[in-house]
Amino acid sequence: MNKNLPTLEGLACPIPLPHNQKIVLGHGSGGRMSYDLISRIFFPPFDNPILKAGDDAGVITIPNNIYDLGSKLAVSTDSHVVTPLFFPGGDIGRLAVCGTVNDIAMMGASPHYLTAGFVLEEGLDVGLLCKVVDSMRLAACEANVQIVAGDTKVVQNGKADGLYINTTGIGIIPHDVIIHGGNAQPGDVVLVSGSLGDHGIAVLAARGELNFETQIVSDVAPLNGLVSTMLATTKAIHVLRDPTRGGLATTLNEIAIQSKVGITIFEDAIPVKPAVASACEMLGFDPLYVANEGKLIAIVDKNIADELLSVMKDHPLGKDASISGVITDQPADHVTLKTTFGTTRMVDMLSGEMLPRIC
Amino acid sequence: MNKNLPTLEGLACPIPLPHNQKIVLGHGSGGRMSYDLISRIFFPPFDNPILKAGDDAGVITIPNNIYDLGSKLAVSTDSHVVTPLFFPGGDIGRLAVCGTVNDIAMMGASPHYLTAGFVLEEGLDVGLLCKVVDSMRLAACEANVQIVAGDTKVVQNGKADGLYINTTGIGIIPHDVIIHGGNAQPGDVVLVSGSLGDHGIAVLAARGELNFETQIVSDVAPLNGLVSTMLATTKAIHVLRDPTRGGLATTLNEIAIQSKVGITIFEDAIPVKPAVASACEMLGFDPLYVANEGKLIAIVDKNIADELLSVMKDHPLGKDASISGVITDQPADHVTLKTTFGTTRMVDMLSGEMLPRIC
Repeated sequence: MNKNLPTLEGLACPIPLPHNQKIVLGHGSGGRMSYDLISRIFFPPFDNPILKAGDDAGVITIPNNIYDLGSKLAVSTDSHVVTPLFFPGGDIGRLAVCGTVNDIAMMGASPHYLTAGFVLEEGLDVGLLCKVVDSMRLAACEANVQIVAGDTKVVQNGKADGLYINTTGIGIIPHDVIIHGGNAQPGDVVLVSGSLGDHGIAVLAARGELNFETQIVSDVAPLNGLVSTMLATTKAIHVLRDPTRGGLATTLNEIAIQSKVGITIFEDAIPVKPAVASACEMLGFDPLYVANEGKLIAIVDKNIADELLSVMKDHPLGKDASISGVITDQPADHVTLKTTFGTTRMVDMLSGEMLPRIC
Repeated sequence: MNKNLPTLEGLACPIPLPHNQKIVLGHGSGGRMSYDLISRIFFPPFDNPILKAGDDAGVITIPNNIYDLGSKLAVSTDSHVVTPLFFPGGDIGRLAVCGTVNDIAMMGASPHYLTAGFVLEEGLDVGLLCKVVDSMRLAACEANVQIVAGDTKVVQNGKADGLYINTTGIGIIPHDVIIHGGNAQPGDVVLVSGSLGDHGIAVLAARGELNFETQIVSDVAPLNGLVSTMLATTKAIHVLRDPTRGGLATTLNEIAIQSKVGITIFEDAIPVKPAVASACEMLGFDPLYVANEGKLIAIVDKNIADELLSVMKDHPLGKDASISGVITDQPADHVTLKTTFGTTRMVDMLSGEMLPRIC
């Protein structure tokens, strides 16, 4: 489901001062100004008793009845440095929440708690910060996670491009779920949840680096709901991974190495929107390498693939899902593409850098 | 215990390439170069099976026998932007580990797991990065925590001052520990674990901002061992807090507000090294506001204060501990200083910014 920019009209930014107030080094002092910033800008939107306790660490609980079954926790961290801060379909705040929620979900885990670490640039408009924070709030609501601890630092003007956001997440892995990158098995099939490359091209468009108009919006979205629906259907999911930086090609290569298998994908079964395909062609990009922020790949037992595909297609974030490949025993550690022309070529990890600062 | 810079001689930096190799944007691509950087620079020093699984999230376990007793988890996050990256007694890597370990320990929790999110500046010397990572490794060993998840982004030259590091930590709060900022009670006493201001003055010296020679080294150290020793003696500890940015004065003000109590401290019972006192006097700083990274304050039942002080003094990180204040019921929310001259003055939070980029 592609999202438009979260609506910011009517946002009740809790600070009493004008929105054009600027961040200054004092907001990172740890003193009165930090206290005011935190209590006015961060606490109200992220309202929850764990955060508002205001201690050095948030105190969280993991439901005993789940944990007693032998469940484990998934922990993931991601720093976000995307530029520009706002782009069609999202912004750095939405990205920071979804990026970490998705990494947790890719272990088959249910994300519960996030932390947020902000590095703010001196001179940052406080109104803009409020918009980013409110976008985080909306994304956290959508993903049903709580932000339970935070930190704010301020660096001098000219550093940090407005702001960087680190998020770290904690989720619970159900005891009957065994999902990891080393678990792909020959004979499994590869499902892709939707069209590739939307996020990368949307950010590029926001940078003004396209010489043509495009309506492409980022796919940035929390995938834990889709994963939860999939796991309610079957536990025979072996690998989940979201193809972010480096795109599908890099992600599949990582899995091939981790699982010591070959992976063959079929070009005509890989969903790419015509507008993204056109943009990639004009820019000389391969959509297999362009970043996504609301897509997943699932490697599953072939016997449940059709049923799972059907379930995914019924979910808003999986409606364009497709069976796009198979796991083989040879060539181990390698990814192969069967092109629409019937030829075969090796697909390596992304080499060098195609789209810096994409997330 | 003041630490000298961790020895870096003989450090076996695991990359096969020359140490003067520079970080480029491709190291943040998510592709082959990211894979190489992670597997060569980060995995070997942070060696553990959770991290090396190489999945989107680290899978951690919390010992069932502890958890079943009704224990909770403490979660804390901290972004580190200190400048310069190396200073007498420490560096950004040691600081990043200790800062978060200490925030976890201040809930009376035993820290177990850390995540590490790096924002690297294009052009950063890889040898320098290796030194920072090795310093993190040493500090993590010292604190007995594992780094179980990580992330690396690269920003353009001129951003990020070399590198920023976010760490997020998870620890277990024993079921019989109730420590938080809102728990100070009139009649309690305030213990300070050692001399104030060492970290702030050491960083300032490293910036070349002192016009005189000083041997002051940062106190940056993991405090979880000291806390563990203290909790083995008594559970009647009501508040623990490490006075970092904003110093002792700001920290006590926060506690006074959280607990709705007054706090009175005695100037002649607040440990400050002569060299720090001199530096502060020349710079016009008040040591009560200067940052510490290896000190804690404990607010405890007065009946166990003497015994606890004795235990703290037996620990290397508490040998200069002192009973420095008392909790009162009035004036609520305020901190008062009894000076060596017998006068009384209010002590507010730090206002403005005294020492930017101190952690």
